[in-house]
Amino acid sequence: MKLHDMSVNLKVIGIIHSKYKTTFEAPRQGKDEISRIEIYKEYIEGLTDIDGFSHLHVYYWLHKSEGFSNLVKTPWDENLHGVFTTRSPHRPNPIAHSVVELIEREENILSVKRLDAIEGTPVIDIKPYVKSLDFKENAKTGWMEKTKL
Amino acid sequence: MKLHDMSVNLKVIGIIHSKYKTTFEAPRQGKDEISRIEIYKEYIEGLTDIDGFSHLHVYYWLHKSEGFSNLVKTPWDENLHGVFTTRSPHRPNPIAHSVVELIEREENILSVKRLDAIEGTPVIDIKPYVKSLDFKENAKTGWMEKTKL
Repeated sequence: MKLHDMSVNLKVIGIIHSKYKTTFEAPRQGKDEISRIEIYKEYIEGLTDIDGFSHLHVYYWLHKSEGFSNLVKTPWDENLHGVFTTRSPHRPNPIAHSVVELIEREENILSVKRLDAIEGTPVIDIKPYVKSLDFKENAKTGWMEKTKL
Repeated sequence: MKLHDMSVNLKVIGIIHSKYKTTFEAPRQGKDEISRIEIYKEYIEGLTDIDGFSHLHVYYWLHKSEGFSNLVKTPWDENLHGVFTTRSPHRPNPIAHSVVELIEREENILSVKRLDAIEGTPVIDIKPYVKSLDFKENAKTGWMEKTKL
């Protein structure tokens, strides 16, 4: 553990059920597959009124990711890029974040589109997608503009 | 520690410098104040080419937040809401996430707009804002639609 590291107890609020069992099988950025997020009992009340939201931020812990580099190669081109300009799983903290479409909620199960995670991935947070905060129409995306992403 | 919890070692990649010293002083959702994110030396290379991006996702640990509730009151109305439909700091894992505008980068310092965090807040990740993933023009926002947010 280095100088600035923090030892914390992350609460796992649920797990992801996906038809993909390994990262090798999983499509990038989730495509239109439907995944299910199973929220654990003690957090169900935290989903109150979630049905009114069409999109959610989902944050999950990439439990299969090992190690990180400051410079990473991505599927989008041949160059190395600073890890903080990519969504690479090989980052200092293997936290992933997807904006998903909420298709349906049944009790503690959220069915969502565009979640690119494998079966059994631990979920650590969900937040609402809010246009006034999250919608940046004129965003410039640096090296990615030359790619198909 | 409960059944599903994970004990992890979070790497702090930098800290936030803000004119606000306490959560009581800080404006909600950052307004147009400029904050600075100081990235620690060992992660500077991970910022390579970040200047090309106008907007970034910044993830930080709300080190002053204590405890959580499944139902929370927000500044936006009088009702209780499921914590996962809010940005309340009183969530199972006190991870905050802002979409910020990158104003300038000088070496290991990122000057950004719209970060609502206090001085000394630990940063745990930065990712690029990518329109094809993050831009949801027709997002519906449930209970928030009646508020000014």
